[in-house]
Amino acid sequence: MTDVIPIVLGERSYNIYVGFDLLANAGQILRSLLTSSKLFIVTDKNVESLHLKVLKDSFNRAGFNINCIVLPVGEESKSFSQLERLVDIILEMHCERNDTIVALGGGVIGDLSGFVASILLRGISLVQIPTTLLSQVDSSIGGKTGINTRHGKNLIGSFYHPIAVLSDLDVLNTMPIRELKAGYAEIVKYSLINDSDFFFWLEKHGVDVLTNDKSAILHAVLFSCRSKARIVTIDERESGQRALLNLGHTFAHALEVESGYSEFSHGEAVSIGLVLAFNLSVALGFCFAIDRDRLINHLKNVGLPITLPPLQNNTWSSERLMSHFNNDKKVNDGRVTFVLTKGIGQVFLSSDVPVDLLRTVLDTMIRDVGENQS
Amino acid sequence: MTDVIPIVLGERSYNIYVGFDLLANAGQILRSLLTSSKLFIVTDKNVESLHLKVLKDSFNRAGFNINCIVLPVGEESKSFSQLERLVDIILEMHCERNDTIVALGGGVIGDLSGFVASILLRGISLVQIPTTLLSQVDSSIGGKTGINTRHGKNLIGSFYHPIAVLSDLDVLNTMPIRELKAGYAEIVKYSLINDSDFFFWLEKHGVDVLTNDKSAILHAVLFSCRSKARIVTIDERESGQRALLNLGHTFAHALEVESGYSEFSHGEAVSIGLVLAFNLSVALGFCFAIDRDRLINHLKNVGLPITLPPLQNNTWSSERLMSHFNNDKKVNDGRVTFVLTKGIGQVFLSSDVPVDLLRTVLDTMIRDVGENQS
Repeated sequence: MTDVIPIVLGERSYNIYVGFDLLANAGQILRSLLTSSKLFIVTDKNVESLHLKVLKDSFNRAGFNINCIVLPVGEESKSFSQLERLVDIILEMHCERNDTIVALGGGVIGDLSGFVASILLRGISLVQIPTTLLSQVDSSIGGKTGINTRHGKNLIGSFYHPIAVLSDLDVLNTMPIRELKAGYAEIVKYSLINDSDFFFWLEKHGVDVLTNDKSAILHAVLFSCRSKARIVTIDERESGQRALLNLGHTFAHALEVESGYSEFSHGEAVSIGLVLAFNLSVALGFCFAIDRDRLINHLKNVGLPITLPPLQNNTWSSERLMSHFNNDKKVNDGRVTFVLTKGIGQVFLSSDVPVDLLRTVLDTMIRDVGENQS
Repeated sequence: MTDVIPIVLGERSYNIYVGFDLLANAGQILRSLLTSSKLFIVTDKNVESLHLKVLKDSFNRAGFNINCIVLPVGEESKSFSQLERLVDIILEMHCERNDTIVALGGGVIGDLSGFVASILLRGISLVQIPTTLLSQVDSSIGGKTGINTRHGKNLIGSFYHPIAVLSDLDVLNTMPIRELKAGYAEIVKYSLINDSDFFFWLEKHGVDVLTNDKSAILHAVLFSCRSKARIVTIDERESGQRALLNLGHTFAHALEVESGYSEFSHGEAVSIGLVLAFNLSVALGFCFAIDRDRLINHLKNVGLPITLPPLQNNTWSSERLMSHFNNDKKVNDGRVTFVLTKGIGQVFLSSDVPVDLLRTVLDTMIRDVGENQS
């Protein structure tokens, strides 16, 4: 059985298909949605060995003309040079306006391939087949595409929606637990944004989700997808509500830039970012410490990081982290917009965070790194 | 007095302002349209020396915070490397979501800057200030942005509309006659598409337009902008009608790729492309030779090329030209769509052009190169 979550955006509307055994049925599902027969499957080395054959067989049975492009693994692929290379390969294979790019992989593959689809011949069709928990609950939904620059993550990109998203939960069986946890951090985020009941459910069933209990994972993914779909439908271009989805992310992006995207996964950075957002909210007097501690306990229980790791070649610096905020996309008139919270399930936006307090919150967490090390 | 041509596209609607002395009034016009105060003016070396000061003074008077980026002159700027460089410079200057890129220049500056605006932070505001006749009547209208690759022109890009287009006809006084003629080729194109009366007017007043008679140039630019605005409004994404604007352009692009973008200007390539489109239509029996000859006479009278120039390091080849058609964006299911004509003002689309006939038409024109040379 496949659940279908509609994303209603006028002529850009599409469905997210969530279920089991979807890779093997992808050809059949897409046959009715696509006008072209030529597909460019973009994937990475890891995903290729795990899932490409099943997908190709399914596309072949459905009569598609398939071209595969296998990229190296890792965030480094979200670069200008890989963008140029991918575009060049696809043009070399002869690409027409009604051909389709199929992004088979995690967030890196989805963000890069989505961006390529949006700019190739000024826009060709796109199908997202996310193969990580993180991309299934977050990056494949909502049409954000992008690459990184030395100034920060996703500073170059587009809003570009796929024709369909296929989230096959069976692929999660082959995921390392560390990556499952990274996706789990985003699931926790949805509960923190607007649903304390779901947070309570996660406190009870989080371990089931992370051990891939079929019914638990289906519930968690569906809840997350519906949460994001609701917000994206209201505010496609992030002029308001959608910014709430950035809870913890302004911090997370700064941590990733500062560590050269190498010390932790995006989900781990988000986990620490969520803690920082709650610490800041507590310091500002918006949130009770008990809510923050409850979050910290839950993250700890499922094995997500709640403190900064030591940097390999440097020490953390609150000044440098704050300088990265200013390059974030969520800056208006020089003011950084933070997502703060009044407790679990009650987030809001604020552009009035005093710099001193922000520095204190960062310094406090940075001091813990030293203590953990000594 | 300033004429205003509205482009009606829902929430993406904007106005084209056409008139005299607009650069000096740009600050005042934009003040009411823009929410941000930070502008990134992108221009090239030539335009910088001619027009930047007037524009900057005007923006300064209106209280804008101005940053200028001056690029090298030429089509080479529409490359991945210049794209990356421009993005990097703007990010280095600190760019926020509600800042604005002002493209001050011809088609190259407009296409590149427009593309950068569309992908920077997933889209920031854009103002087009075209400073060539070609960009005023064509490339600044309709939201097409893009860069070239080794596979062809504008194969990478986006549909992205500006907040406003300011077309100051005074800037045309500083244009070399060769570039005026290049823009004139597009003006002729509009008459060929759907208005034989305008073609008759051009036969009478073309020389006035090219000698910058104020009233003639205003009439020609307004007519052209309105023609394009009408078609773009009906078919923003080029799923039908808008393809008619490509009259002569499938040929022109192939000529430009084959010559390495160096033998002639885009407008000159279009002029030859228009002749080829009419030759093809005559060969197919759709168009009387008398209409084709009337076009050729008019192009000749105003000094636009009607035959191929000799290539510097090679000879023209119909096979190679046809291979470039296949990389054109106007290809569906392997079939190239050509804009053909039943006479002046009566164009239509066709995907049924026999390859043999196409080759003959190209070979006939290529043979003339040899004859002109010997």
